[in-house]
Amino acid sequence: MSKHGTVKKAVLAYSGGLDTSIIVRWLIEEYGCEVIAFSADLGQGQELDGIPEKARKTGASKCYVEDLREEFVRDFVFPMFRANAIYEGRYFLGTSIARPLISKKQMEIALAEEADAVCHGATGKGNDQVRFELAYYHFNPEIKIIAPWREWDLNSREALIAYANKHGIPVPVTKKRPWSSDRNLLHISFEGGILENPWAEPPEEMYLLSVAPEEAPDKPEYVEIEFRNGDPVAINGQALSPAQLLAHLNELGGKHGIGRADIMENRFVGMKSRGVYETPGGTILEEAHRGVEQITMDREVLNLRDSLIPRYATMVYNGFWFAPEREAMQALTDETQKTVNGVARVKLYKGHCRVVGRKSDTNSLFDPEVATFEADEVYNQADAEGFIRLNALRLRIRSAMQKKRG
Amino acid sequence: MSKHGTVKKAVLAYSGGLDTSIIVRWLIEEYGCEVIAFSADLGQGQELDGIPEKARKTGASKCYVEDLREEFVRDFVFPMFRANAIYEGRYFLGTSIARPLISKKQMEIALAEEADAVCHGATGKGNDQVRFELAYYHFNPEIKIIAPWREWDLNSREALIAYANKHGIPVPVTKKRPWSSDRNLLHISFEGGILENPWAEPPEEMYLLSVAPEEAPDKPEYVEIEFRNGDPVAINGQALSPAQLLAHLNELGGKHGIGRADIMENRFVGMKSRGVYETPGGTILEEAHRGVEQITMDREVLNLRDSLIPRYATMVYNGFWFAPEREAMQALTDETQKTVNGVARVKLYKGHCRVVGRKSDTNSLFDPEVATFEADEVYNQADAEGFIRLNALRLRIRSAMQKKRG
Amino acid sequence: MSKHGTVKKAVLAYSGGLDTSIIVRWLIEEYGCEVIAFSADLGQGQELDGIPEKARKTGASKCYVEDLREEFVRDFVFPMFRANAIYEGRYFLGTSIARPLISKKQMEIALAEEADAVCHGATGKGNDQVRFELAYYHFNPEIKIIAPWREWDLNSREALIAYANKHGIPVPVTKKRPWSSDRNLLHISFEGGILENPWAEPPEEMYLLSVAPEEAPDKPEYVEIEFRNGDPVAINGQALSPAQLLAHLNELGGKHGIGRADIMENRFVGMKSRGVYETPGGTILEEAHRGVEQITMDREVLNLRDSLIPRYATMVYNGFWFAPEREAMQALTDETQKTVNGVARVKLYKGHCRVVGRKSDTNSLFDPEVATFEADEVYNQADAEGFIRLNALRLRIRSAMQKKRG
Amino acid sequence: MSKHGTVKKAVLAYSGGLDTSIIVRWLIEEYGCEVIAFSADLGQGQELDGIPEKARKTGASKCYVEDLREEFVRDFVFPMFRANAIYEGRYFLGTSIARPLISKKQMEIALAEEADAVCHGATGKGNDQVRFELAYYHFNPEIKIIAPWREWDLNSREALIAYANKHGIPVPVTKKRPWSSDRNLLHISFEGGILENPWAEPPEEMYLLSVAPEEAPDKPEYVEIEFRNGDPVAINGQALSPAQLLAHLNELGGKHGIGRADIMENRFVGMKSRGVYETPGGTILEEAHRGVEQITMDREVLNLRDSLIPRYATMVYNGFWFAPEREAMQALTDETQKTVNGVARVKLYKGHCRVVGRKSDTNSLFDPEVATFEADEVYNQADAEGFIRLNALRLRIRSAMQKKRG
Repeated sequence: MSKHGTVKKAVLAYSGGLDTSIIVRWLIEEYGCEVIAFSADLGQGQELDGIPEKARKTGASKCYVEDLREEFVRDFVFPMFRANAIYEGRYFLGTSIARPLISKKQMEIALAEEADAVCHGATGKGNDQVRFELAYYHFNPEIKIIAPWREWDLNSREALIAYANKHGIPVPVTKKRPWSSDRNLLHISFEGGILENPWAEPPEEMYLLSVAPEEAPDKPEYVEIEFRNGDPVAINGQALSPAQLLAHLNELGGKHGIGRADIMENRFVGMKSRGVYETPGGTILEEAHRGVEQITMDREVLNLRDSLIPRYATMVYNGFWFAPEREAMQALTDETQKTVNGVARVKLYKGHCRVVGRKSDTNSLFDPEVATFEADEVYNQADAEGFIRLNALRLRIRSAMQKKRG
Repeated sequence: MSKHGTVKKAVLAYSGGLDTSIIVRWLIEEYGCEVIAFSADLGQGQELDGIPEKARKTGASKCYVEDLREEFVRDFVFPMFRANAIYEGRYFLGTSIARPLISKKQMEIALAEEADAVCHGATGKGNDQVRFELAYYHFNPEIKIIAPWREWDLNSREALIAYANKHGIPVPVTKKRPWSSDRNLLHISFEGGILENPWAEPPEEMYLLSVAPEEAPDKPEYVEIEFRNGDPVAINGQALSPAQLLAHLNELGGKHGIGRADIMENRFVGMKSRGVYETPGGTILEEAHRGVEQITMDREVLNLRDSLIPRYATMVYNGFWFAPEREAMQALTDETQKTVNGVARVKLYKGHCRVVGRKSDTNSLFDPEVATFEADEVYNQADAEGFIRLNALRLRIRSAMQKKRG
Repeated sequence: MSKHGTVKKAVLAYSGGLDTSIIVRWLIEEYGCEVIAFSADLGQGQELDGIPEKARKTGASKCYVEDLREEFVRDFVFPMFRANAIYEGRYFLGTSIARPLISKKQMEIALAEEADAVCHGATGKGNDQVRFELAYYHFNPEIKIIAPWREWDLNSREALIAYANKHGIPVPVTKKRPWSSDRNLLHISFEGGILENPWAEPPEEMYLLSVAPEEAPDKPEYVEIEFRNGDPVAINGQALSPAQLLAHLNELGGKHGIGRADIMENRFVGMKSRGVYETPGGTILEEAHRGVEQITMDREVLNLRDSLIPRYATMVYNGFWFAPEREAMQALTDETQKTVNGVARVKLYKGHCRVVGRKSDTNSLFDPEVATFEADEVYNQADAEGFIRLNALRLRIRSAMQKKRG
Repeated sequence: MSKHGTVKKAVLAYSGGLDTSIIVRWLIEEYGCEVIAFSADLGQGQELDGIPEKARKTGASKCYVEDLREEFVRDFVFPMFRANAIYEGRYFLGTSIARPLISKKQMEIALAEEADAVCHGATGKGNDQVRFELAYYHFNPEIKIIAPWREWDLNSREALIAYANKHGIPVPVTKKRPWSSDRNLLHISFEGGILENPWAEPPEEMYLLSVAPEEAPDKPEYVEIEFRNGDPVAINGQALSPAQLLAHLNELGGKHGIGRADIMENRFVGMKSRGVYETPGGTILEEAHRGVEQITMDREVLNLRDSLIPRYATMVYNGFWFAPEREAMQALTDETQKTVNGVARVKLYKGHCRVVGRKSDTNSLFDPEVATFEADEVYNQADAEGFIRLNALRLRIRSAMQKKRG
């Protein structure tokens, strides 16, 4: 038994990179436990084929690799986009929304494997540890959670490499890039390192999913996206599965340099942090979704939903996906999306996209035939006088009484 | 005395165009009253020099022309931008924010002139009538308001021209453009006519304040904007007055094709309407303002303020500027802006702008020296465990009890 | 054809009182139309048996009388109470929630009878006209609406009596009470007349549903109310239908002088108005509902729902029941109520009620067995340190930087 | 130097009870530091005269006793009551609002005494530790905080008594009551012990500030409370200082059995907890304040403020008083209170209070003279038609289009 308490079997969220490779070994050394590796394919575009061998070589007794791309987009990304959730006005929550799904599968494996612990490679200063662990606890409130970065003393790259060398863990020969990043089908994020100077523009070579706007085609491209119940279902008339659709939008957006964001954001743990993001498809998606909403959604519904965006987005950012308050908000959101059926036409050009047309055969509240109503049946200009006078009444009384009292 | 009731003297919001020229005459014919014209310079870029003569020729007894540009930007545009007010996620409220100021000056003239009525040229289907009249009533709850478009039967261009010809009012020879527009220092709007097909992209020749992104310079341009208490005060180190500053940003934005928005919006009177806008300077301003907020504003303050944006924006859109609820919201907003001091660096390129750097000497909450604190003084990674465990507690109890009950 | 436009058949919301009796005749005289009377039993406790004869004697061609009590409580009152909707912190919306149902039935009759108009007896200064008409328009956006109080010149009691006498309509001999009132199974309201002095306490003889607290029993009474999915289903262990249950609570509340409220409220049409209400059963219901929520509802869900109460209540007050924004809010509300299963014990005494016990076999989040968890499994006091330190972090950084800068 | 790290001088929030007496000694034993005791008089009604001697006898080198009653009510209670802050719809935040002031004074003493640590006696499961420590950190982000209950192993009453006996600390002979409580000028709270059964009614002998409603006078009493800028300034025409006024209302409320609340509340640390409260004066105050607001506050201002109550109340409950988000909210609140000038008349009777009259000479928006306006100047019933028709427009269009599409 180790100093850390008894653990028999741990399921580790494993990427195959240096850090999680070291964690496999460290778990064995420190906890003396069996380690089961788990890698999720969320569209990070990384080769996962060799992963199981790699995991086993480093000491894992088993390795699960699961393709979660469709589930990710269908059950996590799309519900969130129905809510137009954007954190602090700028961040599309690409990393935040992935963590709950990874945790869910990891806990399913833990259950199947009768593991008594789960483990992740997130640091103690970030948001991801919270997101992972809130989800773990949701599925099993008594699970033992191991967060090596909060426990060990391998707090520098040098220490990690020394540990790897000592334990025969292969260290990648490529030089580490001066920032860290996280990628999936919705986005790639960059943070840390040279980005910690908030006044310095990020270097062009950092970006992976999009060309520089300056390098994008000189001719705009138009794309038509069809929505049903608030979810995108087809591009330019072609039906696509959720993951296919988002992948296709990523290609389009990346080609046109769309979806870069450079922000200072506020972490749940209480500090500000610089984050740079590429969300090519998601950026197009949000613009198109708003376009269809504009023509199909009632004014007051839109206002109500919009006023809740900061709250919904904060829930996702902070890791409260599997939480009753998020579910309540989702119920409202999904109710508002029942009418969001239609097509948006979006212009893509040099780093930016903009809706230039929208239509809905079934749910437009701007059907041109409204105009064929008899004028006085639907809109009588004289009505506006009474409308204004009663809207003004409380202000008029207030002014009149102020005046009277001097 | 006319059929419309007794009016002795009316102050008219006068533009010099065909419609308000006809209104001068119509007021005299129908109400038998003296008409005083009032034209406000809000930076609409239109020649106002000949206005007084034109007004008098059409029958006005007097004409006021006032340059309100500085007041407009300082006391209306900037307070609104402190709140990051955007209507329905897309519209920068360029027309909405101008109406209260016009009304305020119009009412000052009415008071000075002892006029018993005020008159505007807004139609009975739009928002502007509401904005004008709510402000009129605020300043004098007993004022008589004349809204000719809700009263007369000149409901077609033909009828208007016939009326003009009959009364010797000169009709512009230029062909009317197939949309209507409103311009000031913050924006130009387009609506109606061919724009009423929400699927059709607006024609390029419509735009006035910005070149097409495709025609913008091939090289990006960077601009640094300094803010004090949430208001922009200098560009690239040069202090500028509010109106000068906004005009300069308009130039920059216009040159790079920035600030076009094409939306379906929900009018206060209850209908959806297509609006196309150019807000070149305002778009840069909002992006830069958010940039400085990101580094100077507390997380919870930002969240609180952001959650109120839809409500604040709706107040302005609906015309409730001179209203106690807007003042209460402004008090909160201004309190949040006390720390918003710093500089944002914005990249302008081909129709889009993006913050790429931000700093604050006085109010950064990301001062790099924070890092020099002893690690355990400010951030102990072990703290995260307790933080997560207590944030998870209510969810753990819930899951545990659900489990126990099956 | 009359001066008011062509109407062939109108359905009138008919009470049998003087006003709506006169309206029957006035419709015939002014519109020359057939009049169908409709009286809804919402538990106003008034004899409806003689209504059809009375209606026909006054000129109606037909009279519908419908018992809507169960539908009223089940589909209108209970959904609203799930949301804990209280207008301006004090008003239980007893009148507001009745109008949509009356309108719905009236429109069903209009459809069945192929009537081309509907008519109500609400005045032009109040909220009820809005509530009726918004609902009418929802069911048929082209319906012709007749609101006699906004049209006729019978603007005094004398004029009404003269009109009645002229047309042989029997005038009640009882002296009119110096206020008006509206009653149903949820409440009775009083307004107008002597109540218009907001400093004067209402006279004791006004109250109808409750004894004066001073006259209530000297011994408290306890009642246990069981909720399922947020709706009350049983009292003291006895299952009751919605209307039976509310009627029983009214008896209990009335006996103990519970549920009186005396407020100045803000009408949708823009004026303040004094309203006095008796809501005996509803007051107990809200208290009990909160009691069960306290033990079954998650903290963040409660906070989210509570922050929406003013908005939900305003929707109901203003008449937007059949509106998509209310439906979206209801979806959220109903989601939050899935766990609201349990029993509250309420003490009733001399004008007041208070929860003194609550329990839930199925959804308590305070199950005493939680204590049997190993202490360190569920709550480790040391966790609090990290929790506090990270919650404090943003405030500490702020203070530190302020200090450093002086 | 002790195992806990170096501390030279600690300022302890000291009550003179057994727990904090033990803490004095424990600090000396464990930290080897000088201990300065600090007792705040917040109106807890306890004898503070002997405190300094007691503190010194137990080992404290010095003892500060400060009368903070006026500052407490003026700068903490009243600003919070301006916001009508009530946590989870029922709790008047009596304990929550006291902690920031105690912390503030404690930190002032720490500064004056050049102490390097502060210490409190709150447990690791409650809210108070958070409230104390967030405030400590606000005043000095680097302060060393000692929370003995999270550190020591004296986790039972027996262990505490043994420790006391060992160190010669006098143990009170009175039997400990089976609950814990906290008292100040705003309230007394009870929690823990026998209250942990949420189904059991608290015993009558527990209550300290109010008689049982059953024992209250059989005759109602009326009280008139005058407000200026939202703060109460006089009772029955007599001006009183903040603390005097609240004390007087406590007497009145206590005499009539007013202000008891029995709730299950959600702690910030994540658990539900039963709390029973007596807030006699505060309950009357909130009712009276709402009364004056009803007649002086604009409808939209009221709605805006009310929708923020849950958020403001949560800030106070969670301990974020000295936080920029609370200050922003206060700015809004105080702006809304500028017009809240007037008098409310409240009826007190057997456990309950209710406004029965309200007036304002300076800010009524229900001035009876409004009625003397010409009818058509201020309210024309015909205006209501247009008002309703345009409010209905979006719903009519929606229904019409749904109908058309079947």
